[in-house]
Amino acid sequence: MTSMEILQRLQRVLAERRNAAPDSSYVAGLYAKGTDGICKKVAEEAAEAIMAAKDGDQTHLVKEVTDLWFHSMVLLAHFGVGVEDVAAEFLRREGVSGIEEKKQRGNPS
Amino acid sequence: MTSMEILQRLQRVLAERRNAAPDSSYVAGLYAKGTDGICKKVAEEAAEAIMAAKDGDQTHLVKEVTDLWFHSMVLLAHFGVGVEDVAAEFLRREGVSGIEEKKQRGNPS
Amino acid sequence: MTSMEILQRLQRVLAERRNAAPDSSYVAGLYAKGTDGICKKVAEEAAEAIMAAKDGDQTHLVKEVTDLWFHSMVLLAHFGVGVEDVAAEFLRREGVSGIEEKKQRGNPS
Amino acid sequence: MTSMEILQRLQRVLAERRNAAPDSSYVAGLYAKGTDGICKKVAEEAAEAIMAAKDGDQTHLVKEVTDLWFHSMVLLAHFGVGVEDVAAEFLRREGVSGIEEKKQRGNPS
Repeated sequence: MTSMEILQRLQRVLAERRNAAPDSSYVAGLYAKGTDGICKKVAEEAAEAIMAAKDGDQTHLVKEVTDLWFHSMVLLAHFGVGVEDVAAEFLRREGVSGIEEKKQRGNPS
Repeated sequence: MTSMEILQRLQRVLAERRNAAPDSSYVAGLYAKGTDGICKKVAEEAAEAIMAAKDGDQTHLVKEVTDLWFHSMVLLAHFGVGVEDVAAEFLRREGVSGIEEKKQRGNPS
Repeated sequence: MTSMEILQRLQRVLAERRNAAPDSSYVAGLYAKGTDGICKKVAEEAAEAIMAAKDGDQTHLVKEVTDLWFHSMVLLAHFGVGVEDVAAEFLRREGVSGIEEKKQRGNPS
Repeated sequence: MTSMEILQRLQRVLAERRNAAPDSSYVAGLYAKGTDGICKKVAEEAAEAIMAAKDGDQTHLVKEVTDLWFHSMVLLAHFGVGVEDVAAEFLRREGVSGIEEKKQRGNPS
């Protein structure tokens, strides 16, 4: 198992909990708050990541980026998309960037 | 290759570019702006993800979460940490959550 | 003139520019970007105020809060409301808080 | 009394409460949370103003901008500055903008 598989496993858990009772887990409670409630958490965690960075605190920064990614995964799941769509978008951009790089090598300007 | 490996490959690219000339790439330019410049992008992309969610636009949401993760990976790299630290934090929490779940099963209350 | 009248004067300028050509001023350009463009600036300025606070830099904090208020006034004007509505909301809350305080004095618990 | 005086009156209340017991009021509790706690609220209220704007809901937008201004005034007070400094910054910019405008009239280019 690569360490990245944790994201895919979490994704499955998040998808399963979309139909659970609001008081059955933290995530189920978040879904029940709807788009605004989930987005508020995304904003809050982004602010906390920024503050940890300003403190220059590596450990805190990692925790806050984890919170930010977690809540953005809940937001994705809320709209029926997920981490594999984000991975696909990263791959697509990598491809585009590779093509651009080759073009630049062929057409120095 | 799992789709998640793209994050680890991107991580390596981000780490390599930390010593590149500021005008050599978008990422090198971001590093040159320092903590405040990178954090400003994280805030901006979080806001854009929230606005895409409010529009209920799946495709746009995936693109904006990709931008948010990309810029938070630049922030991590700027502080010498990375996506494997975030994965480790997710694993640690999963373990804690598993332990808590077992405790709850043993001690229904 | 009290110093606060500057906000009402700015408000009038912002309202006038709603119908100006996009390239005629910074504000006219912002309106042309629409809700998303204006909101992005609000998010960016909020992040900058937070970073100035983390730096403990009074002068920078005042500048960034000024930017934040300026862009939130553009957002209000974009929706046909303004600083006098915000002032009315503050007054309403002050009244509610006064009433609650009196109740508490009458009903110590 | 102009409607804007409410901001100056609120400012005085916020300044007074800086030395109050944390459980004596909402604002005293906020000060006790320190810079990070106050900044988190600023980020949250900015996000809520953005979401109200995306909903095109004037009344909600006014309430959220009021919350945003309120919490940014707490942040200013926490650092010993206030709304009159923001007003002075607005006035300074207005002057600069007036000077620039005159220059442009004199030097068309």
